[in-house]
Amino acid sequence: MSEITLNCDLGESFGAYRIGNDQAIIPLVDAVNIACGFHAGDPHTMNKTVQLAKKYQVNIGAHPGFQDLQGFGRRNIDILPEQAYDLVVYQLGALQGFLTIHGMRLAHVKPHGALYNMACKNRVLADAIARAIYDVDPNLILVGLADSELINAGEAKRLSVVNEVFADRTYQADGSLTPRTEPNAVIHDPSQVVKQVEEMVADGKLTTVTGEKISIKADTICVHGDTEEALSIVQAIRKVIA
Amino acid sequence: MSEITLNCDLGESFGAYRIGNDQAIIPLVDAVNIACGFHAGDPHTMNKTVQLAKKYQVNIGAHPGFQDLQGFGRRNIDILPEQAYDLVVYQLGALQGFLTIHGMRLAHVKPHGALYNMACKNRVLADAIARAIYDVDPNLILVGLADSELINAGEAKRLSVVNEVFADRTYQADGSLTPRTEPNAVIHDPSQVVKQVEEMVADGKLTTVTGEKISIKADTICVHGDTEEALSIVQAIRKVIA
Amino acid sequence: MSEITLNCDLGESFGAYRIGNDQAIIPLVDAVNIACGFHAGDPHTMNKTVQLAKKYQVNIGAHPGFQDLQGFGRRNIDILPEQAYDLVVYQLGALQGFLTIHGMRLAHVKPHGALYNMACKNRVLADAIARAIYDVDPNLILVGLADSELINAGEAKRLSVVNEVFADRTYQADGSLTPRTEPNAVIHDPSQVVKQVEEMVADGKLTTVTGEKISIKADTICVHGDTEEALSIVQAIRKVIA
Amino acid sequence: MSEITLNCDLGESFGAYRIGNDQAIIPLVDAVNIACGFHAGDPHTMNKTVQLAKKYQVNIGAHPGFQDLQGFGRRNIDILPEQAYDLVVYQLGALQGFLTIHGMRLAHVKPHGALYNMACKNRVLADAIARAIYDVDPNLILVGLADSELINAGEAKRLSVVNEVFADRTYQADGSLTPRTEPNAVIHDPSQVVKQVEEMVADGKLTTVTGEKISIKADTICVHGDTEEALSIVQAIRKVIA
Repeated sequence: MSEITLNCDLGESFGAYRIGNDQAIIPLVDAVNIACGFHAGDPHTMNKTVQLAKKYQVNIGAHPGFQDLQGFGRRNIDILPEQAYDLVVYQLGALQGFLTIHGMRLAHVKPHGALYNMACKNRVLADAIARAIYDVDPNLILVGLADSELINAGEAKRLSVVNEVFADRTYQADGSLTPRTEPNAVIHDPSQVVKQVEEMVADGKLTTVTGEKISIKADTICVHGDTEEALSIVQAIRKVIA
Repeated sequence: MSEITLNCDLGESFGAYRIGNDQAIIPLVDAVNIACGFHAGDPHTMNKTVQLAKKYQVNIGAHPGFQDLQGFGRRNIDILPEQAYDLVVYQLGALQGFLTIHGMRLAHVKPHGALYNMACKNRVLADAIARAIYDVDPNLILVGLADSELINAGEAKRLSVVNEVFADRTYQADGSLTPRTEPNAVIHDPSQVVKQVEEMVADGKLTTVTGEKISIKADTICVHGDTEEALSIVQAIRKVIA
Repeated sequence: MSEITLNCDLGESFGAYRIGNDQAIIPLVDAVNIACGFHAGDPHTMNKTVQLAKKYQVNIGAHPGFQDLQGFGRRNIDILPEQAYDLVVYQLGALQGFLTIHGMRLAHVKPHGALYNMACKNRVLADAIARAIYDVDPNLILVGLADSELINAGEAKRLSVVNEVFADRTYQADGSLTPRTEPNAVIHDPSQVVKQVEEMVADGKLTTVTGEKISIKADTICVHGDTEEALSIVQAIRKVIA
Repeated sequence: MSEITLNCDLGESFGAYRIGNDQAIIPLVDAVNIACGFHAGDPHTMNKTVQLAKKYQVNIGAHPGFQDLQGFGRRNIDILPEQAYDLVVYQLGALQGFLTIHGMRLAHVKPHGALYNMACKNRVLADAIARAIYDVDPNLILVGLADSELINAGEAKRLSVVNEVFADRTYQADGSLTPRTEPNAVIHDPSQVVKQVEEMVADGKLTTVTGEKISIKADTICVHGDTEEALSIVQAIRKVIA
């Protein structure tokens, strides 16, 4: 039960624009996924976020996404698998630059937003991403939605994989996340979030938006840091899985 | 005489936009400087260009520039030294991603365009760039305008440095390049280009736009590949320094 | 027969990057669609292209596209209808700025690339685009793929519409264009291009990639100016429909 | 005394990134300057901000800036005057698109950030901007730093001009703003801000960072809405000049 980790998406500020509560969240999580300058983040933010992660000794992962700052990487873009491959190599390399100057190593990779959601359902895209990760460093861990094509692609490439579940996102009957365009995609009620985590941790189950209970493999829980209630939610989840 | 090398800026295409004659130029040069996606280039172009450089066994350098695709990195931007530092780390890392997947190593770094010109005159900016290069890999070679502050900064940081001269650019009395906004900045006449190279190679001298002869330290000559006459010029220069 | 017009996409250069043969093509066409700085084009290119169109007295249209310079606006992006609405208003306004300073008026609007293709099949998206055009100026003409949802949306909004056919693109059995990701999407053989035009003009028919003959309403023919053979193709088509 | 107006920069959010407290500030000011998508803002934000300004019946101005979202338009970029001209025409046009759909008219133009500061000192750049504004609509009002080259350029072009002073920025002995890179550029103490406004309103004077009192022509006061204390400061200033 205690083997489940907490991970959080950090380093999403851009220039004069601030998003997230990185300083407050990072002491509570085990791993962070750092934006790489395409859907969010920029060189300065990456440098600062790597230093923050180093200070708190959390595992550092890359969070590569679509080159769509306007859409925060959350809009599906119909890219070719080889474009996804190049996109991931570029972003992993850029983040590794900042890890190198601080004497750190990249531990894992988790695609962001629409790239993540598309790869969880599209095996060809997932394969291209898994190949990019493997080619950059075969010791990198691939984090993907539990039981998704992204996980399958990582396993086929013999990458270590980590099944991810979401504390504050609702699920559909097929185990995929409810798209953010739907009104009930995000769970805002902290007690509801904690209940979903408790169910996953205790029973390995999840209640979908349509009421079914489905089995779910949970290696890590993603928590978000960019909402007002985020901090109290993360603290509550930490108590459940500590 | 034969110790002077030829280097060329490559990989400057972007998406559907093509610039340069990379395939034809690369067999004639000793080293290439690859754009890293900020002022030119993109992940796909970087991947292809690294493969091309590997095939022709030329030294591979990074060509980091300002994040100004609209201006092709040729407009001065008033950035802080720490912004330049982060910019360089990011772009070196991104290019290293593509070198890693092809089993290659980065040999040198040459700042691009306005970043190059500003750093050649501004020691504080030059120091930030030299520090970024050193922090990423102290074995990297810094290529800069001969006898400039960029070279001075590299030497102060104990980086190996390479003094660069330009075959097709005119020089001002202080040894700096004539800005591209001036009408006589670029030498278009092939015979004039060759003459400038011969003078540099034979005598270590250069005739400035105002007619003075100045001494110049020439370790490498930069040739451009993006003009119509480029190929014949490079072939002519190759004969002089081969 | 002589009522069919020729239109061409122009002004697609960006910064130092040149695309197209605008000077040579423009005397041969009746209308131009000018890129508005999102998928291609930039303020300087727009200014120059409006002046060119004014000089040759061709009708000026806007060619709004996705904010995806990397993909030249040819990759589907999953935007909301209201995002498409704002995207079109912004780009029409920007182009109107340049028309205003040269005393010209915008005549028509033709969505570009993936935005065009998506709107031709997706009525909700098409309605948002038609509404944006109407709100900016109800006298604007909407150019869309013949018999598509984009044309339907324009008619529902009581905009004047123009049915467009393509001289150098192949068609699928449902009357839609073969996607550019398919190898046979573009017709490169000039005689084949002319043959397709002759069939459309003489019979109002078209032969699809799968061999069916389908009826097609042709008010205007789109010709492309960014290939080597473009000029000779346009000259040949001009003879057919003049 | 009551003839001095309050203006505020609004609509600076971008995609998922929020800046400013537009809803709270707008009822307190007479005019707003709306970002046009280059240094800040995007089509959706522009649409929403125009609607907000319409609702509160404030004068609507354009706030064109450098294409530098990363630097929020606050970094000097060494552009040519004709580039500045095209930049301004494009952004004015884009904003006019949104004004048109809501039946509103553009009242004034105020360059943003580094473009503003550069134009206040560089007459050639200022002339290009004034010419762009005039060519788009000679009835537009140009807002610039009091007694600056930007004001001079506007007067030379026979544009109506408005001399702007800043409530929360310190001044140098030559009447220019202290650059934001300096520690004392922004006045954070509300009582100090109000004191500066009172002195300008009552005496037409200003105390510079070096202690001199200089005369200042104040037609409008710029207030900022993107800081925590902004709202209380604006309320205090409103009392002074109401």
